[in-house]
Amino acid sequence: MTDEIVVIEGDGIGREVVPAAVEVLESFELDFEFVAAEAGDATKAATGEALPAETYDLVADADATLFGAAGETAADVILPLREAVDSFVNVRPAKAYPGVDALRPETDVVFLRENTEGVYAGHEDRLSDDLSTLTRVVTSSASRELAEYACEFVRDGRGPAGDPDEGFTVAHKANVMRETDGRFREEVLAVADERGVDADEELMDAFATKLPLDPSQYGVIVCPNLAGDVLSDLAAGLVGGLGLLPSANVGHENGLFEPVHGTAPDIAGEGMANPTAAVLSAAMLLEYLGHVEEGGRVRDAVESVLADGPRTGDLGGSATTDEVTAAIVDRL
Amino acid sequence: MTDEIVVIEGDGIGREVVPAAVEVLESFELDFEFVAAEAGDATKAATGEALPAETYDLVADADATLFGAAGETAADVILPLREAVDSFVNVRPAKAYPGVDALRPETDVVFLRENTEGVYAGHEDRLSDDLSTLTRVVTSSASRELAEYACEFVRDGRGPAGDPDEGFTVAHKANVMRETDGRFREEVLAVADERGVDADEELMDAFATKLPLDPSQYGVIVCPNLAGDVLSDLAAGLVGGLGLLPSANVGHENGLFEPVHGTAPDIAGEGMANPTAAVLSAAMLLEYLGHVEEGGRVRDAVESVLADGPRTGDLGGSATTDEVTAAIVDRL
Ligand SMILES: CC(C)[C@H](C(=O)O)[C@@H](O)C(=O)O
Ligand SMILES: CC(C)[C@H](C(=O)O)[C@@H](O)C(=O)O
Repeated sequence: MTDEIVVIEGDGIGREVVPAAVEVLESFELDFEFVAAEAGDATKAATGEALPAETYDLVADADATLFGAAGETAADVILPLREAVDSFVNVRPAKAYPGVDALRPETDVVFLRENTEGVYAGHEDRLSDDLSTLTRVVTSSASRELAEYACEFVRDGRGPAGDPDEGFTVAHKANVMRETDGRFREEVLAVADERGVDADEELMDAFATKLPLDPSQYGVIVCPNLAGDVLSDLAAGLVGGLGLLPSANVGHENGLFEPVHGTAPDIAGEGMANPTAAVLSAAMLLEYLGHVEEGGRVRDAVESVLADGPRTGDLGGSATTDEVTAAIVDRL
Repeated sequence: MTDEIVVIEGDGIGREVVPAAVEVLESFELDFEFVAAEAGDATKAATGEALPAETYDLVADADATLFGAAGETAADVILPLREAVDSFVNVRPAKAYPGVDALRPETDVVFLRENTEGVYAGHEDRLSDDLSTLTRVVTSSASRELAEYACEFVRDGRGPAGDPDEGFTVAHKANVMRETDGRFREEVLAVADERGVDADEELMDAFATKLPLDPSQYGVIVCPNLAGDVLSDLAAGLVGGLGLLPSANVGHENGLFEPVHGTAPDIAGEGMANPTAAVLSAAMLLEYLGHVEEGGRVRDAVESVLADGPRTGDLGGSATTDEVTAAIVDRL
């Protein structure tokens, strides 16, 4: 059965790293049909819309989407697309690779970020000239669904330790947001208990202190939406930046895969961008579609190239995007 | 004119580090009257209330309060006390000191955290068995007041660079919270512009990546309430932990000064706690009450002791709280 994969390069280095990731996907000769679609700043300039309805529909009807990056319009593109694939969890691994300069080389964590609610539910009101409000939303159903995913994730040995017994940490701010994060915390811990998965907890501020002090004490971290955004970006700072981090917006029958980095306007168009994050996002796409062995091979090839292969400028090398991509394909 | 200073030791090591800070304050023979008050877990166990009305009233009527730490009841104590002193800004310096092991020894930043609203405004509702909401509040008036304070802070040379022209950075998430953080961002930048103070901005997630990668690019950072909580705790992780960080909850005619650390139950009661954060909080209290020269002397004495004086266990030494305090007083 053919899997339809929508490919959105977007803006800036998205136009360079996404083709690299597609090249890696194509090298497997799987039954994939790639369909190109447009979104982002350039699309807005050309059509008046950052995310044309056509693109939204293509993504919603596909089996998976590979997305690059968008500039100013990032939120207008990425938030609706997460909805289009019906994503309930954003999976964000942050791992320091041998051979790459990292503030904390022992970092190896995976954030499982709630992907539908919190402050992202987006009910905002301008109540007066002085006052605006935002309604933050937390449901038991979304919290439990995330927790079920986390339990399965850990049980399948997909956590950093690869150990079905490693458990997870819930990060929240339930001491202040007692009703909303209180609900989140309670439901996530209850599901872990029901499934027999070990779970401990941290206040998100304490977690922000402790992660840089000793990342080795954490593995899988389960968070509300904004907490997952900020804390996973913090982890990115410990492994050397956003350049290497992939992410998966996982839905029930669809998924959106994207590097965590942005458009990097300073180097865009020069063919010098690091394709690693996009290629690792493609590995997550492969695994999501059931090609677990192929996903693992991509990951291994990337690690091997990072260790002793050609490197782009951000990692102190001078190789081009194409050279790094060729090296990855070569080592698959 | 006598300044009335309420002293709340609270729980755990609060009972050890607050007396140390009072000893430092007393060494100046200023016209201070110290009034002891109770709050925290032990108070709750004894009286049924973590924050007795009597303590609240004493704090509200005082000129300043020195607070230690509270355990489980921290939020029940500290949030109302911030209100009692009518605090609109939480000032949180995070500085790496020579002689102290820090992940990023070049860190020297000050967070100015909005202290009254955001998700802390605390309107939460349980709308159904499945759904809870929290109303996040942002006003132009609070945002502008914070920004005015930030401009004055910088202009007075109180930023890390001590340079009236250093400007500040606003950290926010206005790409998602467009109306609320949009209002915050707009008002803060507008005030900076009116006052002729340089201001740039960062999305709070990007800031969480960039701060560990290169803290030297930041000085004064202006944030909404929860962003300031998490990002300042992140900075704590870069300077070696919460053990050294003071904070000031600044109000119009009152202030609440507290170490950022908690009760440290593992070492409480042994006389081994590091008094540095409490003593530096006392230095902020001195400055707030107009004793700028004395505040500076405390800071210098603390830095000198950190560099080559006795150290407590958290810094790899074996000195007692009393020994460190005596050394600080000695070098004043
Ligand atoms: C672009 C923005 C809306 C987005 C988010 O906040 O989720 C980004 O920061 C991310 O983490 O993918
Ligand atoms: C105890 C808690 C309510 C408090 C806060 O969130 O403000 C603490 O984390 C702090 O930063 O002082």
